[in-house]
Amino acid sequence: MAQFEQARGKTLWVIPDGYIPPESSGQMTSHESICVLNFGDLPAKLNITIYFEDREPLENIVETVGGRRTKHIRTAGLSSDGQSIPPGVPYAMTVESDRAVIVQYSRLDSTQAELALMSVMAFPLE
Amino acid sequence: MAQFEQARGKTLWVIPDGYIPPESSGQMTSHESICVLNFGDLPAKLNITIYFEDREPLENIVETVGGRRTKHIRTAGLSSDGQSIPPGVPYAMTVESDRAVIVQYSRLDSTQAELALMSVMAFPLE
Amino acid sequence: MAQFEQARGKTLWVIPDGYIPPESSGQMTSHESICVLNFGDLPAKLNITIYFEDREPLENIVETVGGRRTKHIRTAGLSSDGQSIPPGVPYAMTVESDRAVIVQYSRLDSTQAELALMSVMAFPLE
Amino acid sequence: MAQFEQARGKTLWVIPDGYIPPESSGQMTSHESICVLNFGDLPAKLNITIYFEDREPLENIVETVGGRRTKHIRTAGLSSDGQSIPPGVPYAMTVESDRAVIVQYSRLDSTQAELALMSVMAFPLE
Repeated sequence: MAQFEQARGKTLWVIPDGYIPPESSGQMTSHESICVLNFGDLPAKLNITIYFEDREPLENIVETVGGRRTKHIRTAGLSSDGQSIPPGVPYAMTVESDRAVIVQYSRLDSTQAELALMSVMAFPLE
Repeated sequence: MAQFEQARGKTLWVIPDGYIPPESSGQMTSHESICVLNFGDLPAKLNITIYFEDREPLENIVETVGGRRTKHIRTAGLSSDGQSIPPGVPYAMTVESDRAVIVQYSRLDSTQAELALMSVMAFPLE
Repeated sequence: MAQFEQARGKTLWVIPDGYIPPESSGQMTSHESICVLNFGDLPAKLNITIYFEDREPLENIVETVGGRRTKHIRTAGLSSDGQSIPPGVPYAMTVESDRAVIVQYSRLDSTQAELALMSVMAFPLE
Repeated sequence: MAQFEQARGKTLWVIPDGYIPPESSGQMTSHESICVLNFGDLPAKLNITIYFEDREPLENIVETVGGRRTKHIRTAGLSSDGQSIPPGVPYAMTVESDRAVIVQYSRLDSTQAELALMSVMAFPLE
């Protein structure tokens, strides 16, 4: 599709409600995902920042999404300098990209016996 | 309603978090739907592209939505050249339309015994 | 709040994924709500249109939201000329208002024994 | 991150569908949260207004979010002049901020035995 050859989307996305449920039950593990689509032909480099309620942000978490690819990134696997996002703690997240992308955020919570889902488009700032 | 006679909406919509749950339980089948509203008097022709994490996109899936009609399209039924979206695989989706439409995406997951729902407006790019 | 004395929001909102679950279980009834906030001092008159997959739209459903009030309107109670929205049928909905308002759409589904929730901001067109 | 030193976001956010579920079951309490991210270096002062279906708004609920911090605020704990939001009542909410912030709204409902989740970005007006 010729009209997709130029990258499209935004370069700064915000997710104010981040939370990794610390417990799971049944066959599905509680988790969150940042789902990114990169329309362009070249890889997009993401720089993720985690904001907390009571401490300095965790910065410079790096991920890459290939050209004409999506990546559904589990937040529990993110880390920077050996630090990762603690489960059971309210946080917020920003996703910067060096190329225009689209970002959606979804959470699956199976703390109680049957799973619950929520999803939002991240809020585009730039 | 005279003010609806001109088609309204956008022509390129993005859904980064696509996923067909491979399992179901109870009376409801796990599924996703792309819900499209076409305000205009003439049919809208949709061209859907599926982006994956590790392979080339699946392109040129075609659907039509009649004028002054909605269509709630189950993703499991989409196909192009005999290829369809595999269940249990993270993907992303774009919906292009030759006329302005509005697109919402919803998922029902009944992998565990009671269903879960999520829904987002697709992200409008054009 | 003086800065709220002028009405704010939009006058045409779209919800592509409408569906009244036909079954319920437990103590909560499956239902959808259109949740409207009217900032202004004067009542807002809503004109709701229901779009179907296979028949002409159901038009001219009228509701009123008082000034500086919210109204959470259950879709099952909407009617026009004795016609209402059939349960178990995919539909889409537009909400026009003669004054600027804000519209959110939520669904509670208790078809299977435990409830599921979904919610989206309606898509603002005007 | 130098590019975040200027505060970013919006200063008036709207959530039309507010509701504090009056009942809970299992280990998780039904609740709603307003999740705010303050990018800036200085604290943001929030002024929250609650709109009802049948009475005057509850105004001047004040909260503060530190610079480079998030705050996930449970609505059940909000109060102004000794008045708080009654559970089991449909309401709407606005969040004004003296500095640009980003606001997301989420609800966990465990009225029936397994929890349900919903989440939306609040609607930005200013």
